[in-house]
Amino acid sequence: MEVVKRLKALLKEISVINSSVSLMHWDQRTYMPSKGAETRAEALGYLSALSFRKLISPEMGELLETLSSKNDSTSLSDLEAALVRVVKHDYEKAKAIPPELYQKFVITSSKSQTAWEKAKKENNFASFSPYLEEILKLLREMVEFYGYEEDPYDALLDNYEPGMTTSKLEHIVSELKPKLISLIENLSAHAPIDDSFLKGKFSKHAQKKLSMKALKCIGYDFNAGRLDETIHPFTITIGTGDVRVTTEYKLSEFIASLYGTIHEGGHALYEQGISPELKWTLLDSGASMGIHESQSRMMENIIGRSYEFLSFFYPKIQRAFPKTLKDVPLESFYRAVNKVKPSYVRIEADEVTYNLHIMLRFELEKALINRELEVKDLPDAWNAKMNEYFGIVPPSDSLGVLQDVHWAGGMIGYFPSYMLGNLYAVQFFNSALQEIPELKKEIAAGKLSTLREWLKEKIHKHGRIYKPEELCKRATGEELSPRYFIDYVEDKFRRIYGL
Amino acid sequence: MEVVKRLKALLKEISVINSSVSLMHWDQRTYMPSKGAETRAEALGYLSALSFRKLISPEMGELLETLSSKNDSTSLSDLEAALVRVVKHDYEKAKAIPPELYQKFVITSSKSQTAWEKAKKENNFASFSPYLEEILKLLREMVEFYGYEEDPYDALLDNYEPGMTTSKLEHIVSELKPKLISLIENLSAHAPIDDSFLKGKFSKHAQKKLSMKALKCIGYDFNAGRLDETIHPFTITIGTGDVRVTTEYKLSEFIASLYGTIHEGGHALYEQGISPELKWTLLDSGASMGIHESQSRMMENIIGRSYEFLSFFYPKIQRAFPKTLKDVPLESFYRAVNKVKPSYVRIEADEVTYNLHIMLRFELEKALINRELEVKDLPDAWNAKMNEYFGIVPPSDSLGVLQDVHWAGGMIGYFPSYMLGNLYAVQFFNSALQEIPELKKEIAAGKLSTLREWLKEKIHKHGRIYKPEELCKRATGEELSPRYFIDYVEDKFRRIYGL
Repeated sequence: MEVVKRLKALLKEISVINSSVSLMHWDQRTYMPSKGAETRAEALGYLSALSFRKLISPEMGELLETLSSKNDSTSLSDLEAALVRVVKHDYEKAKAIPPELYQKFVITSSKSQTAWEKAKKENNFASFSPYLEEILKLLREMVEFYGYEEDPYDALLDNYEPGMTTSKLEHIVSELKPKLISLIENLSAHAPIDDSFLKGKFSKHAQKKLSMKALKCIGYDFNAGRLDETIHPFTITIGTGDVRVTTEYKLSEFIASLYGTIHEGGHALYEQGISPELKWTLLDSGASMGIHESQSRMMENIIGRSYEFLSFFYPKIQRAFPKTLKDVPLESFYRAVNKVKPSYVRIEADEVTYNLHIMLRFELEKALINRELEVKDLPDAWNAKMNEYFGIVPPSDSLGVLQDVHWAGGMIGYFPSYMLGNLYAVQFFNSALQEIPELKKEIAAGKLSTLREWLKEKIHKHGRIYKPEELCKRATGEELSPRYFIDYVEDKFRRIYGL
Repeated sequence: MEVVKRLKALLKEISVINSSVSLMHWDQRTYMPSKGAETRAEALGYLSALSFRKLISPEMGELLETLSSKNDSTSLSDLEAALVRVVKHDYEKAKAIPPELYQKFVITSSKSQTAWEKAKKENNFASFSPYLEEILKLLREMVEFYGYEEDPYDALLDNYEPGMTTSKLEHIVSELKPKLISLIENLSAHAPIDDSFLKGKFSKHAQKKLSMKALKCIGYDFNAGRLDETIHPFTITIGTGDVRVTTEYKLSEFIASLYGTIHEGGHALYEQGISPELKWTLLDSGASMGIHESQSRMMENIIGRSYEFLSFFYPKIQRAFPKTLKDVPLESFYRAVNKVKPSYVRIEADEVTYNLHIMLRFELEKALINRELEVKDLPDAWNAKMNEYFGIVPPSDSLGVLQDVHWAGGMIGYFPSYMLGNLYAVQFFNSALQEIPELKKEIAAGKLSTLREWLKEKIHKHGRIYKPEELCKRATGEELSPRYFIDYVEDKFRRIYGL
């Protein structure tokens, strides 16, 4: 069909431009010399705008219109129908916002990030608050253009987790929160785990070799990617056959880097597993931020911090750092990397406390968007919730309300993806366990290929064809439910702490 | 003026796309994983075509037309007038060839390169000759579309060296050739120079450090570029402030890599020195292949292989490879890196024999284009000239007529740039010597900044504003003349050989 061909050609154009944008981003954060920054920013601005203009072009509108009409859509293959459905959603979202408003939002977010960096450094929330207010104002306007059924916050959630709603999230939170708070209280009553041996001196060379071993072990394909250094680690897809991972090596601790690499590796496995059929279609990426995060958190935590995986991989870690670890038994190491401790900073949180950090942010940002909370009262609200959930109050806003870049960057509605990722991860893994009875044994033998094939078949290969909800039902037979996660953390951490 | 603004905006679009193409090329030859190759080729094809389409677009035609008309052109600044003149030349060259013919040429060159690789490997000229015949046929067609005044070969020369003609080249050759042949005969009569100590084992790490030192010494700005590894070294500009050098380290010899890096460094200094005023204009690159080569050959040979430079830099080389070189005196090293020896392969040739390799190719390719030589007779013609100029005949076509990729790639008219580069280099350097009386002393002290500023002022900063001929006149006060080169090699090599 001629129209489908034209749509595919246009999507390929957009994808090729996006590929060049991705390569520029990767290069900017790995190898670009400092004096190239200004030129790069201009090039990125131009190419991103070009890609966006093509997405919202009248030609795109007409093609999607034609292909969505009843007569034409019946002759589409399943893949083509998905293509039309997903791209139409992208198109409508992009078209919904008047260009001037969007432009204003982009500029404000950019300025706001600079202001946030300074405010965080100087522990000065007041200097950042006018920016946050402006961002909230613009987002509230955008929400009206996007439209929503129940809650304005729904419109923002949909940007990161298509189909997710505030009420569904609240339902999850209400089930999960009390269980987690009570578990943390129980664990905190016990003697703390010794993890002092995780600090020391760890050469970059040894860390790099270990990171590469870990990536190979989980099945990352180095012929279709690479591992480089950066300051804020990320995974990026340049195109089919080229999915790159980055990490940061800290010389005084290797754990953050090792698990950071495995986390990114989980994202990368997802992208490497997407069907080549979806090449250049805009469907060749993850179904949502939450589903993406489920793949990284599964590798990092459910696999990477499991006793089974460590019984295979810990000897390699010991060989990498014999001075520090040769006398530390597996059991101690396993307990150390699973230590639960209420902390101020989200990105340092363990598996049990992590989701509470997210709930706190979800509740606050929802209240901000809905004008139930004023920006000036945000630091107090933050600290009150910290006290309520963890029994600790951050000593400064830099370690509290100013810690994350997301709000400064206009990414309100993003945080829940992290929690959803944790929940999806356990639910997916549970289904895999039922379908692969030998899975735990395989993991203990360093064999992750059966699991990877399962994930590829159930999740990876589909790219963005299915919405998260449908993907979850197809993979696990039911909707997302927090009870798998609750069972998982209760079981795992009660054992570790000997409750 | 509105029209100038529109032209600049269009040139910026083209430049930004070209920047993304450059980054993709750089990445392809340094860090890209193998499975990304197919996607990359598609992306490069699309983006190159997009850039080309914008160059030959009706909009470009109209803008250039308007700005070239008398009424409008008088109000242009010098820079804007140059912009119109240079881009118009690009536009007309690109428009001259019917798209189908150009497409055929691109495909044929690509296939031909593959055939050439095989033919070279198997020493089988006959298997390559049909491809070369097809390329010549297409180029002869293209020549008719380009147009020329005297010789069809002029139209091809102009692609690489705007303004150069066959008759000018022949004039240069007729002066230079007998002098070089006679010099080589004289030098060959003397005892050969010992350079056995240049072979050995040289760690990649030490070579890399040395290459970086050499680049720093000539003034390459590492904040506006970087050094990476590749197989066939090249220099590439990603954009203003980002000019990258690549090199190859051979573990059994470091000389090729060191001088290769300095050579690329010369190209990079040129691009780093272009005026930021020319950013995003298509004028922000070298004036011609010959001028570009003059900058690389000056750094590699006139500076890099000079006694003065080595009296400063050789101690660093010795410290890099103490085992091999600590007992080799400067004088011996200097003589070794300047050894003159007729050889089969152009890229291994010394300063004296190099230009003869070029003359041979120039004479043969001109004869091929003009149907004065048939492809089937090319190997014999090659070997006859090798015998005439050097007194040696290659033992195989792989080491003879098949050694270079240029003809297979359709790049006929390119070779003379190398010779012109050598001549320009000496002529420029001579002018610099006259204007900077302390220059040789400065070089011996490792101080290259005065020379670099001179080159920047006279050559680099102008980008493509002036044609090579005008640039040469402005920099040296006269047209290109081979006598500076003749004096230089006669003086330098008679001394070295003690004649």
